[in-house]
Amino acid sequence: MPIRTDADYAREQDARDPLAHFRNAFVCDDPALIYLDGNSLGRMPRAAVARAEALVRHEWGNRLIRGWNEGWFDTPERIGAKIARLIGAQPDEVIIADSTSVNLFKLVVAALRARPGRSGIITDTLNFPSDLYILQGAIDVLGKQHTLNCISSPDHIHGPAEQMTAQLSEQTALLTLSHTVFKSGYVYDMAALNAAAHAAGALTLWDLSHSVGSVPVELNRDGADLAIGCCYKYLNGGPGAPAFLYIRHELQAQLQNPISGWMGQQNLFNFGLEYQPAPGLRHFLTGTPPLISMALIEPGVDLLLEAGLTALRTKSIQQTEYLVGLYDALLAPVGFTLNSPRDYTQRGSHISLGHAEGLGIDMALINAMHVLPDFRAPDNIRLGIAPLYTSFEDIHTAVVRMRTIVDERLYAQYTGHAPTVT
Amino acid sequence: MPIRTDADYAREQDARDPLAHFRNAFVCDDPALIYLDGNSLGRMPRAAVARAEALVRHEWGNRLIRGWNEGWFDTPERIGAKIARLIGAQPDEVIIADSTSVNLFKLVVAALRARPGRSGIITDTLNFPSDLYILQGAIDVLGKQHTLNCISSPDHIHGPAEQMTAQLSEQTALLTLSHTVFKSGYVYDMAALNAAAHAAGALTLWDLSHSVGSVPVELNRDGADLAIGCCYKYLNGGPGAPAFLYIRHELQAQLQNPISGWMGQQNLFNFGLEYQPAPGLRHFLTGTPPLISMALIEPGVDLLLEAGLTALRTKSIQQTEYLVGLYDALLAPVGFTLNSPRDYTQRGSHISLGHAEGLGIDMALINAMHVLPDFRAPDNIRLGIAPLYTSFEDIHTAVVRMRTIVDERLYAQYTGHAPTVT
Repeated sequence: MPIRTDADYAREQDARDPLAHFRNAFVCDDPALIYLDGNSLGRMPRAAVARAEALVRHEWGNRLIRGWNEGWFDTPERIGAKIARLIGAQPDEVIIADSTSVNLFKLVVAALRARPGRSGIITDTLNFPSDLYILQGAIDVLGKQHTLNCISSPDHIHGPAEQMTAQLSEQTALLTLSHTVFKSGYVYDMAALNAAAHAAGALTLWDLSHSVGSVPVELNRDGADLAIGCCYKYLNGGPGAPAFLYIRHELQAQLQNPISGWMGQQNLFNFGLEYQPAPGLRHFLTGTPPLISMALIEPGVDLLLEAGLTALRTKSIQQTEYLVGLYDALLAPVGFTLNSPRDYTQRGSHISLGHAEGLGIDMALINAMHVLPDFRAPDNIRLGIAPLYTSFEDIHTAVVRMRTIVDERLYAQYTGHAPTVT
Repeated sequence: MPIRTDADYAREQDARDPLAHFRNAFVCDDPALIYLDGNSLGRMPRAAVARAEALVRHEWGNRLIRGWNEGWFDTPERIGAKIARLIGAQPDEVIIADSTSVNLFKLVVAALRARPGRSGIITDTLNFPSDLYILQGAIDVLGKQHTLNCISSPDHIHGPAEQMTAQLSEQTALLTLSHTVFKSGYVYDMAALNAAAHAAGALTLWDLSHSVGSVPVELNRDGADLAIGCCYKYLNGGPGAPAFLYIRHELQAQLQNPISGWMGQQNLFNFGLEYQPAPGLRHFLTGTPPLISMALIEPGVDLLLEAGLTALRTKSIQQTEYLVGLYDALLAPVGFTLNSPRDYTQRGSHISLGHAEGLGIDMALINAMHVLPDFRAPDNIRLGIAPLYTSFEDIHTAVVRMRTIVDERLYAQYTGHAPTVT
């Protein structure tokens, strides 16, 4: 469907956006900046400023060690229970701990040991590379008894769901995937893959990093066993914010945390010499958590809960559809390709656009156009739409500038430069 | 040697303390609070307030994803290099990552795999319990091929160094200990144990959590292979601050991080599908680090470097000797026991005092006397001396109040209550 490509149309959409006021809940000191990297590092909620000051100035500075009894100790569960509401889980099925990679390691090792006699792990080439590295490391630690079947996407955009389903067998221990793919934004049908994996007796583990806070996830309804996710993207938790993990009730007592540190110990202040796992999910904690980074996750999660995932997803679809429409009208004619699914039901909240001069265009956007996307090799300019604060006008402006960069060959001076780290 | 027990003496010592002015570098809004738990959670440097504000308000809020190119990415190495100066290591032998427990897991697994054919791990019952739990978990993950020989201290105060040395053999893969013991404050002779372990062909791994920032450590000189440590105690890095790890040069390429996440990947933004460890120490990073908690480690480390470890150790010895002298004069007569080494050369910067009513006394100190020590079962009132900011008057006041609590039986109302979590 052709869309209007004028800026007035974007402003009209913003004027009728029921979530538009949430933009004011975020720090935007530089109103000219078009920030389309909220899927890498979310904007900072204004409430995080006050929370950080209270945490540092009052809680650490004045309460000192007493802070652990005055809310710190329960932070992993308190924020976990809030995130649970964003991903269709029970409050006691989600906890904050470590990083996404460390949580993945813990859950992969635990899952593989819970399926003795099965040697297969199935994943895809679209998975976030760190997840693949962690899988490779876990296989190594467990004595190289498992094989990693990393199935290729035929088009580097869509997940190879059918091929994976066909490979599931009584040898499969684990199916693990990024729910929303980091490059293309493809979203897997979680319910179908959980059902197929369970029919083969395998466990499933989902990386929700690019879904949580923008794509509705229903872990319980869709039968997921395990999940992990990042808190610094659409959750707006701050740089390197600790991650979350999910274990469905039935598996919590069965699985064993390989990194059995004292935060997961029952009665940790008894200082017994033998590890005794705490009940529930707490035994998947490891060491003392980085409290300040962890506590700053909460303001962003509160905003998402206030907005509601249904409204967020509605806006996200409108905005990715709008972006694809602008791509069709303004960018496809000058050599861009759509490296994301065209069907919005298969798509998360970011769009990757390819171009033969992709890296130069990305650098021109950053350095000359005051637009911040990110770049994913070989040629993906990744445009993240955070429905809490991205405006239609942001999207329109970014597309017009991308067109200008190509029309005026502004990319040429950057070609061959190293990419900016994002 | 008998000492003067009057408050004037304490004030005289403070007046001639060359480090006294460093107390002003810390937030002390409640000057009446006697804080003797800096070995659990150090006080907050004033500079941390400004650093936190810049981090949150400016770097996250305004620089957003660009922050990673503007200093965030190198934070693990930058702060690691500073900590290296506190523990006698080269700048590129120390890096900040994860928690102490996760770092221990990584190094233990790596060390055991670097000593194939050897099945023994030697440690002691004085080690921090979390370290024992991690060792138990690592053995489990590696297929239960190793045995943990956890040697008892004869008196629960002094480390069983001779018994451990006698147990070292060609079967020993790893000797791992807390350098300064968390309950008694006993300090091992690191050089002697490294030499003995190396003579048997074993690796050594030291937990420096209760040493770093208060006890001089010379990892290079004393031949240590591996070390880990906590940044929220004497380093004053804030609640749950990420931890550090040390691997001596010769072992860095040889050891393999079992939690092989993307922060340890060579050329991580190439997003290759196979893990390729980064050179140097960086391949012992895992996921994206909790940047805000991590960056706040730096102000406290800077203060320690400014003061210098020699001066800090000198003051720490003066203060623990003073505390032991006050104990002899005022506390031993009313039933206290010294649960730390009397010989200061065998002692770190905290003193544990036992008493049959220990828990009640601890709670009376906290709730009625405005003194914050901590309590370690069964009966250790642990008094941490942080030479950067603990005053002689703090120590005197705390001892006088402990005496008052016993003289007036103020502990009685707390007996049987659960201990405060510290």
